[in-house]
Amino acid sequence: MKLVMVGSVALDTLATPHGSVKRALGGSAVHAAVAASFFTDRLGLVGVVGEDFPEAFPKLLKSRKINLEGLGSVKGKTFHWQGRYKGDMAVAETLKTELGVFATFDPKLPAAYQSAPFVFCGNIIPEIQGKVLAQAARGSFKMLDTMNLWIATRKAALKKVLRKVDAVVLNDQEIRQLTGLTSLIRAAQSILKMGPKYVFLKRGEHGASLIGKHEYFHLPAYPTDAVKDPTGAGDSFAGGIMGSLAARGRLTAADLRKAMACGVVLSSFQVEDFSLWRTVKLKKSEIDARLKRLRAMTTF
Amino acid sequence: MKLVMVGSVALDTLATPHGSVKRALGGSAVHAAVAASFFTDRLGLVGVVGEDFPEAFPKLLKSRKINLEGLGSVKGKTFHWQGRYKGDMAVAETLKTELGVFATFDPKLPAAYQSAPFVFCGNIIPEIQGKVLAQAARGSFKMLDTMNLWIATRKAALKKVLRKVDAVVLNDQEIRQLTGLTSLIRAAQSILKMGPKYVFLKRGEHGASLIGKHEYFHLPAYPTDAVKDPTGAGDSFAGGIMGSLAARGRLTAADLRKAMACGVVLSSFQVEDFSLWRTVKLKKSEIDARLKRLRAMTTF
Repeated sequence: MKLVMVGSVALDTLATPHGSVKRALGGSAVHAAVAASFFTDRLGLVGVVGEDFPEAFPKLLKSRKINLEGLGSVKGKTFHWQGRYKGDMAVAETLKTELGVFATFDPKLPAAYQSAPFVFCGNIIPEIQGKVLAQAARGSFKMLDTMNLWIATRKAALKKVLRKVDAVVLNDQEIRQLTGLTSLIRAAQSILKMGPKYVFLKRGEHGASLIGKHEYFHLPAYPTDAVKDPTGAGDSFAGGIMGSLAARGRLTAADLRKAMACGVVLSSFQVEDFSLWRTVKLKKSEIDARLKRLRAMTTF
Repeated sequence: MKLVMVGSVALDTLATPHGSVKRALGGSAVHAAVAASFFTDRLGLVGVVGEDFPEAFPKLLKSRKINLEGLGSVKGKTFHWQGRYKGDMAVAETLKTELGVFATFDPKLPAAYQSAPFVFCGNIIPEIQGKVLAQAARGSFKMLDTMNLWIATRKAALKKVLRKVDAVVLNDQEIRQLTGLTSLIRAAQSILKMGPKYVFLKRGEHGASLIGKHEYFHLPAYPTDAVKDPTGAGDSFAGGIMGSLAARGRLTAADLRKAMACGVVLSSFQVEDFSLWRTVKLKKSEIDARLKRLRAMTTF
């Protein structure tokens, strides 16, 4: 296994101004793994589902050649998120969260996963991320995602786990909340002192930046006015990054930059339809075309 | 004359968390012209000052080879802006505006200016911008800047003058206010239907975009945590664009992109000190170094 994705596997019931879905496939590990699957077929997913998890969903993931040895199926109900987006869909409003079997999620990396050189901890409670990282191979490239809830309620635990990763994915609000700094540049520099060598900064419609001690790289968002459902955009971004890195197997500045471009492109497709409907239909040629356009957009 | 810059010539009294100045040289035409002066010495400034305008200031502008035939000096007081910036300095708070001789500003383009192929209307009342544009050469490249105040109070006049320009400079708040649209991409597309062929979209710390019917170009802000005073940043951005275009004399996509990069770089220097203190000291080699770094920041 080259790449392990850990996080939530969820059923999403949500509405946007463009429609709604009920109990559609979602979750941070799922979105990240599906995005990564366009770059490598040596990836495994770690998560947990309940007895109500529709059979079609593992089938879909397997069709993307995602290894599901790490996906536990236990007595109880699958994590169910209910939410909605209004207006410009910038903010997700949570209506109901039923943790179900996710409440006692205690991720175990199967033996085949423990030597993976790339590990991604999707957005889950920081303490659980810590348990995952403790099982990951020494010297592996570790990246984590998080959210405003954990920054507000478990900042100490989050900071502890930040010390153990190579990279972190944060959006502009999260990085300000975590550092108490308004300037994004200063905030990113402050994160670099907390442990991670790289910050992948998500700026929403303003694009994304990769910030390291000796690195500053920026890309615009892929311009689209066809956003139907922003759910999973951040996970697809992270998944594109990790998939590209795992496929390339190296961590030079050029690899990291290319990886971020893959993240931007995957997330631009992800938001064009509900659940994974757009992403699973993706062709490599479509990804390459947007990578090319993204490059053209920043050339002068 | 290749380039004409019209706008305010002001004395600025302002404070930021990093210091303060009293009656320092400022104004939209001044900042734009000084930025442009690093690319062309065939530019003229159109504005008006009062009897209190310190002699050192025209001297400074002349040292940058800016032609001042269009700078009227009349009985009365120079436009005086008093303001402050707090916290992250994202918003200018106006404490007092003394229009002085600017209240009756009726710009006349000297004969030598009337054939200029590049004309910039800095942020002044839209009706006055209209008077300037009526005097500009047919077929000249015309760009204008504006502000939230005119969008709120003189939208009809602004829309009328927008029909007469080739390009407009707007920040994210202004473009949303002017179009009523939240998505910046949709908002820019809507502006393209109002007349301008190009929108230069200022996204603050997120960079800038050039949007045309068949063009989308994006650059990050030059990353600096050394912002002392944001006054004039937008004018320097516009001035860098217009100066670069006037020097190149062409309007291909490559010229427009290079011009925007010059705008980003000039504005990055402008904010590093009060008034024009940093900008007037600039060397061509410093501009080139940042252009090079900006290019490196977006290459993958």
